[in-house]
Formats: sequence, C-alpha cells, structure tokens
Amino acid sequence: MNAIRPVFYVSDGTGITAETIGHSLLTQFSGFQFLTDRIAFVDDMDKARETVLRIREAGERYGVRPIVVNSCVDPQMSTVIAESGALMLDVFAPFIGPLERELNQPRQARVGRAHGIVDFDSYHRRIEAMNYALAHDDGVALDYNEADVVLVGVSRAGKTPTCVYLALHYGVKAANYPLTDGDLDHDQLPPRLKPFRRKLFGLTIDPERLQQIRQERRPDSNYSRLETCRREVQAAEALFARERIPTLSTTHTSIEEISSKVLATFGLQREMF
Amino acid sequence: MNAIRPVFYVSDGTGITAETIGHSLLTQFSGFQFLTDRIAFVDDMDKARETVLRIREAGERYGVRPIVVNSCVDPQMSTVIAESGALMLDVFAPFIGPLERELNQPRQARVGRAHGIVDFDSYHRRIEAMNYALAHDDGVALDYNEADVVLVGVSRAGKTPTCVYLALHYGVKAANYPLTDGDLDHDQLPPRLKPFRRKLFGLTIDPERLQQIRQERRPDSNYSRLETCRREVQAAEALFARERIPTLSTTHTSIEEISSKVLATFGLQREMF
Repeated sequence: MNAIRPVFYVSDGTGITAETIGHSLLTQFSGFQFLTDRIAFVDDMDKARETVLRIREAGERYGVRPIVVNSCVDPQMSTVIAESGALMLDVFAPFIGPLERELNQPRQARVGRAHGIVDFDSYHRRIEAMNYALAHDDGVALDYNEADVVLVGVSRAGKTPTCVYLALHYGVKAANYPLTDGDLDHDQLPPRLKPFRRKLFGLTIDPERLQQIRQERRPDSNYSRLETCRREVQAAEALFARERIPTLSTTHTSIEEISSKVLATFGLQREMF
Repeated sequence: MNAIRPVFYVSDGTGITAETIGHSLLTQFSGFQFLTDRIAFVDDMDKARETVLRIREAGERYGVRPIVVNSCVDPQMSTVIAESGALMLDVFAPFIGPLERELNQPRQARVGRAHGIVDFDSYHRRIEAMNYALAHDDGVALDYNEADVVLVGVSRAGKTPTCVYLALHYGVKAANYPLTDGDLDHDQLPPRLKPFRRKLFGLTIDPERLQQIRQERRPDSNYSRLETCRREVQAAEALFARERIPTLSTTHTSIEEISSKVLATFGLQREMF
C-alpha cells in the first residue's frame, strides 16, 4: 500500500509551469500515491483564501501534510497560500534573485505571461502549424514545400501525435507520410517524397508492439497480423537505412522524447510555447 | 536595441521541464533578446563536455555570460556543466531537500521519468484520447458517449487546437462540434447535441478577430465577411446563454488557458503528461 499524499499545483496563471516541475519532482520519489489537484487562476484574495481551505481540507481528510507546488507570480497570493500549513515549494523564488542580479534588473511580476497570448505572431504561427499538421496528416495533402519536417513510417508508428505535438509546442510545421504496401514493395523512396529527402525523419517500432496497437484498431485483420507488421517494419527500416534517413524507434519513446530528437536532428531551435 | 543574452536549457531527459520553467522565468524580465538553445539527452560525460564547449562558445560570441537552466537529474552532469562558467539555475536542486525531509526518503535520480513512458496505461490513454479528438473533430463523428467534453462554437473559434491539447496533455477525450448556419437558424440546441448537454462547453470569439482568421483561410468569401461573423457569433452566444452552457471567449485566451478553464469547469482532475 502506497502512502497517500495530496499535492496541489497552485498558480495565478494556468498552472502549467507548476504542474510540469511538480510532476518532474514527484517522479523522483516512489512508494507514494500522490493525489494531485490543480488550482489555476488564483488571482485575487478570495480565490487565495478558498485555495487555503481546499488545501487544509485535504490535509485533514488524509491526516497528512499536503504539498503545494506554487507558481503564483504575485507574492501576496503566495503569502496567503502559505497559511495553509502545507509544504510550500515556490517554483520561481529560488531563481528570481540570481536572475535579478545577473540581468541587473528587478523582475516584473506579471501574471499569465508564460502561457497566455503574449506574442501574437508566435501564437499565430503555432495555430497555423497545427492546421498544417492536420491538413498534412497521413498523406492527405502531399505538398511538403512548407514543411519543416516530414515524418515517415508505417501505419501506427506514432507519426500523428508527434506532428501535432511539434506544432502545438514549437510552431514547427510537421507533415507525415504513411508508408503503404505499395511504397514498401519498391526498393526506393516513394517518388513524391524524393524532392523532400532532407526533411524526412523515419519512425519505426517493434513489430510485436505494432501488432498490439493495430489489433486494437482492426482486430483480426490482415493489417494487424504479426506477419504483416514484421514485413512492413522490416521493409521500412531497410528503406531508412538505404536512404540514410534519420530514424528513431517509438516503442519505448514518448511523444515528447521523439519531438525532442526531431528538433535536435534538424537543428530546429524554436522557442517552446 | 535589446541586449542579447544566450540561454541554454540543458537536460539529461527531453529538456521540457527546464524549458517550461526557464520560459516562465524569462518572461518576467524585459529589455533582453534571449537566444534560447535546448540541449537535450545530455546523459554521458562526453555529451556534458560538448555542452560546456557550446555554452562557452556562445558566451565568447556575444561577449556576455550565458544562462543555463539545468534539469539534469544526474548530479555528475550538473557538476561538469557548471564548469562552463554560466549562471547555473538548477531547477530541481532547491526542492529536493525539502521534499526528501517531508517524504522521509532520499530522491531517486532516475533520468527521463518525467517525459518518458513511465506508466504505459496512462500513456496509452493519452494516445487514445488523441485519436478520439481527431476522429471527433469538426463534427466528423457525432457519437459523444465516450467524450469527457464537447466543445461547441462557430467555425474557427479555436475548438480543434484545444481538443488536441486536452488529449495530448491530459488524456481527456474532447470532441468538437461546429455550429453551422443550419444550427444557428433555430432557437434551440441542435438535436444531436441534446443528449450530451452536460458535456458541452461553448467557445466564442470577437467577430472582428474571427473575420481576420477566416479571411486568411477563405479570402473575400461570404464565410469571411464581417457581417457573417457577427451574425454567427451573436446567434451562438445567444444559444449558449439560453442553454446555460459554460462559455469562454478565445479572443485573448491561449490554448493552455482555455484547456485549463475547461478542466476546472468540469472538475476533470487528470494528471498532466
């Protein structure tokens, strides 16, 4: 039995920063069942007091001190929330001093700048990239002139979620092209991909894992047979090797990890959103 | 002229945590042009030394001390990277001690747990949610029995990116239904939405902004006329009010903010990915 411990991500913005670092910290401890709760947009005194009540309530219910990962930019909010008696981890506090000294400037405590629409152009680029990813998903549109990257792989290798992630987070225009039987029968790159050779990134996957995924979508079909999966994956990997296309296996790799490798491979240094 | 300052997000994992908190911190300072560079998967000594060289090089090129936002879990990596002479902001260091004392347990320095595939089931849920969002985008499939939430609004109000974000980050199954002329001519909820009334969340937008967005997609069409936008938005807002559907304007609201409000409205307390 894992010990229950309530954790609150509190923010006067979306709470995404608090949640991201809090999640990273908690994964470094085991043996606990962390009950996480996000309280976002705590931007006035009433909401701060309400937050204190919720935190205290959780502490009483589970008979244990709650943990608060706090990313309120407004120090007044943080002061009130600290009255909850929880272990307060303030995600900005330790870094503001060193940054102020280094940059020789006091911080500006503006709420919601990290995950709000601050720079309209870059926000717009991101939405455009998202539209691009959906329009160029699964070989629907094949004009890759505008693409930053084209993910190539057999069906269900993880292309679509990665394209969408790259768009949403980095404003990267990522298309994807599914390698079909017809493509894999030939010993060369599909002709429509040739002009975009330098933008290609191959995704591969263990045939056994692929079989599981396909089985869920189309049970007991030719598509989901292990033999089919093996043949397709083998042909795709041979193609990637022959054409020297950078390749990654998605079997044990998350969308975030794949995206990170794609960005590094193509030297795409877009700022994160 | 803004002063140039190189910033490196360094990690032995994806670098997402470093980037998220670093971005939040930097938005609190103005007057600088931060040149950000992400160096991910720094998981051996060679890569750490290479990283040091890149950081030093940037410092020399711009004649200013670089800033490193470091989320390496392995302390050895951090020690090497600190030799670069950059301002080191270690995103975990300040919180590990307090957490170790509170949880009465030493941290386990395992790399890649935050953004890798740690819990296969929850990762799977997320990919499933993503497939769900795309299959139920734009009124394509209308069976919302499985949906956690159904976003409703006129075309280009921001429904699709929000659904995808909710899926990718929270494993929430979000469908979206576009209100068309036919729907808006009637004084009531489209019949196919009625059974799912409690799952509906309305997105609205300023007609002027909507006109700009539509103009980019279909220039000088009836679809993009300001009058059309005004009429549709007005009818949609009237519908939301009459049916008491929770509603949010997306005009100045980012995908992250919309998603955060949707989660709060429906009390969806899924853990972030």
